[in-house]
Amino acid sequence: MGKLKGNILYGQSGGPTSVINASAFGVIDEAQKHKDIEEVIFMKHGIKGALNEDFFFLSHQDETTIELLKHTPGSAFGSVRYKLKDFREDDSNYVRLLYIFKKYNIRYFLYNGGNDSMDTCSKIADYMKHIDYDCWIMGIPKTIDNDLPNTDHTPGYGSAAKYIVNTMMEISYDMLAYPNGKVTIVEIMGRHAGWLTAASAVANLSGFGPDLIYLPEVPFTIEKFKEDVKRVYHEKKQCLIAVSEGIQNDEGIFISSSSGLKDAFGHFQLGGVSSKLSNIVSADLGIPSRSVELGSTQRACSHLQSLTDVNEAIQVGREAVKAVLSGMTDHMITINRVSNDPYKVEYGFHPLSDCANTEKRIPLEMINEDRNGVNQKLIDYVLPLIEGENPPKFKNGFQQFAKVK
Amino acid sequence: MGKLKGNILYGQSGGPTSVINASAFGVIDEAQKHKDIEEVIFMKHGIKGALNEDFFFLSHQDETTIELLKHTPGSAFGSVRYKLKDFREDDSNYVRLLYIFKKYNIRYFLYNGGNDSMDTCSKIADYMKHIDYDCWIMGIPKTIDNDLPNTDHTPGYGSAAKYIVNTMMEISYDMLAYPNGKVTIVEIMGRHAGWLTAASAVANLSGFGPDLIYLPEVPFTIEKFKEDVKRVYHEKKQCLIAVSEGIQNDEGIFISSSSGLKDAFGHFQLGGVSSKLSNIVSADLGIPSRSVELGSTQRACSHLQSLTDVNEAIQVGREAVKAVLSGMTDHMITINRVSNDPYKVEYGFHPLSDCANTEKRIPLEMINEDRNGVNQKLIDYVLPLIEGENPPKFKNGFQQFAKVK
Repeated sequence: MGKLKGNILYGQSGGPTSVINASAFGVIDEAQKHKDIEEVIFMKHGIKGALNEDFFFLSHQDETTIELLKHTPGSAFGSVRYKLKDFREDDSNYVRLLYIFKKYNIRYFLYNGGNDSMDTCSKIADYMKHIDYDCWIMGIPKTIDNDLPNTDHTPGYGSAAKYIVNTMMEISYDMLAYPNGKVTIVEIMGRHAGWLTAASAVANLSGFGPDLIYLPEVPFTIEKFKEDVKRVYHEKKQCLIAVSEGIQNDEGIFISSSSGLKDAFGHFQLGGVSSKLSNIVSADLGIPSRSVELGSTQRACSHLQSLTDVNEAIQVGREAVKAVLSGMTDHMITINRVSNDPYKVEYGFHPLSDCANTEKRIPLEMINEDRNGVNQKLIDYVLPLIEGENPPKFKNGFQQFAKVK
Repeated sequence: MGKLKGNILYGQSGGPTSVINASAFGVIDEAQKHKDIEEVIFMKHGIKGALNEDFFFLSHQDETTIELLKHTPGSAFGSVRYKLKDFREDDSNYVRLLYIFKKYNIRYFLYNGGNDSMDTCSKIADYMKHIDYDCWIMGIPKTIDNDLPNTDHTPGYGSAAKYIVNTMMEISYDMLAYPNGKVTIVEIMGRHAGWLTAASAVANLSGFGPDLIYLPEVPFTIEKFKEDVKRVYHEKKQCLIAVSEGIQNDEGIFISSSSGLKDAFGHFQLGGVSSKLSNIVSADLGIPSRSVELGSTQRACSHLQSLTDVNEAIQVGREAVKAVLSGMTDHMITINRVSNDPYKVEYGFHPLSDCANTEKRIPLEMINEDRNGVNQKLIDYVLPLIEGENPPKFKNGFQQFAKVK
């Protein structure tokens, strides 16, 4: 089926997810079925590894390592944030890449990432076509933020959402311990798109979830926020809030951005948005409040993966290999939801150039009328994506992670 | 075996853990085996519920609810922080309690909590003996902080430690994604004892754990901290730090205490110790840094319980019932480690008055020479406590929690 016998070059780029390595597993497992593929070569730290000739090789890995990729968070092969210039402007990196491609007989290039990574992928495809070097190039989607366009959702989102839903339930149940509670403000990742913050609403199906949700898609005002909190706290004597790190005022300025604060050492305070809002609740409303910043645990939550997400992450890896071997190039693999109940997806393709540098935000029709929560459409969208578990490989009470050689 | 036919009154007090409800399950399951016990009555919000005659009854609960107690975090019956005065000083609460005890034929009183709860329990035992009302009173230990004296460890600690070990592994692996990393500072619970922060060291057995650990047992100085961070970062280009919320300088003043900062709204900053240290790393050392505050997820982590911990939590509940029925009173159940390899414990008793208001801190012999980490003795102590899993009851991707009626 493949156009040419040769090697696959695979890389990871951008922020890690808890299932990006499952996509690597999918690539490996599919590649091993095809005789045209001689070796899978992994770039160390994405495109930087290709430029530096810094590689891992599939033939050097053992079976346990490959199997553990399905349970390993982070980027097992290393990631990078590196923006390639257009080759028409500066072709030095591209000339170097072409040398590497030829030296290692790279005929298939697979790049696993988000918006910026699709940009890199697209530019390399552009150059290789221009220079007339025969190779087939495919983007494999990943991001916890779920902001890639042209795909129903993105691998990585479901597991991060599952972690957030279950953590919000636990925080909510924990708050019930005392009759006079607090306002708890949980800060959730997502700089420009609120998909992860919105997912926390699913926790309410259990009876224990957030009362208020603030998204970057809706301009944030302190006055409205204080009104909302006062109303909920008056009624329930407690209030659980999910807030996106990326909320902005109506001028598009991040609420979390430095307010010019200095501490006793003369350092600027970098403070998160949740602690900022928590201080406002305590001081202006006189209500006890605390903040929780989940931080990188959201994208690294290998101990609470969604099985749906893991399986789809594996499958987009497989689909990418099948695509390049069938002669397809310059596209990103997409997931199309065919039906929601029962949940069913099909895999497709979309031109890379159209996937790069665009962000998919939550449509207003999924946000509630009061703009401080979401509606059933959002719940229906998220629910199938967190379904099923992929329990970690525990040994002595802690997880086993892949150690690539 | 029991002295008198009658009812058990059970309550939860102090900060929740992810397995305190497993102890309630142990009480229930054991009580149902004994004909002398007619009903188990649960105080709503601990001793406050007894004073307000606000109860749940075992006979009103269904089997699913009771079974789910083993998987439910927080305090399913509600908790409280309420300090009883000595009855010789003010006996009004005690007179009320005696009325309630008689009205509901309470002959067995079980109180599930930490230091302060054992104080409450001890005072009630004291009064009932003084007034010559026949009843048998037992404390059931719980706390994630592991600071109760006279017991090898405390139910609740193992699960919180397991959550922290696995979360630190994930954060550490996530950090490896980029060649030039950051200093990540994770703030861990424990105001006066560093057991939970110290447990993070177990993550290093996997190859992915903290480089530096700061405990409340060791006086903290900014200069030493900066030296440590510089050294590690110079060597590894990244640094993962576990810091207890309770670290203090050599005058016993909390590093996290308000430094007099105000924000743009004129509010005092409450800021956590991790963000404070993170700012120092960024500003003074010029190294990129970020902080993670795990917050209440540490004590509510029902999705990552240690099976050892769950089983022991159930067993201390059972032992308390067996003890009062055998005529024992005025003691707390203790766990004694008989051997470490294989891990084996026996259950014992210790006088309540001796367990109240005392804190068990980490002995210096478990802390490393450089005072920025722990040694093998601490690892050996923690390891068996995080062993085994008790997977949540998931439905549609989220956990099922008990809803007491």
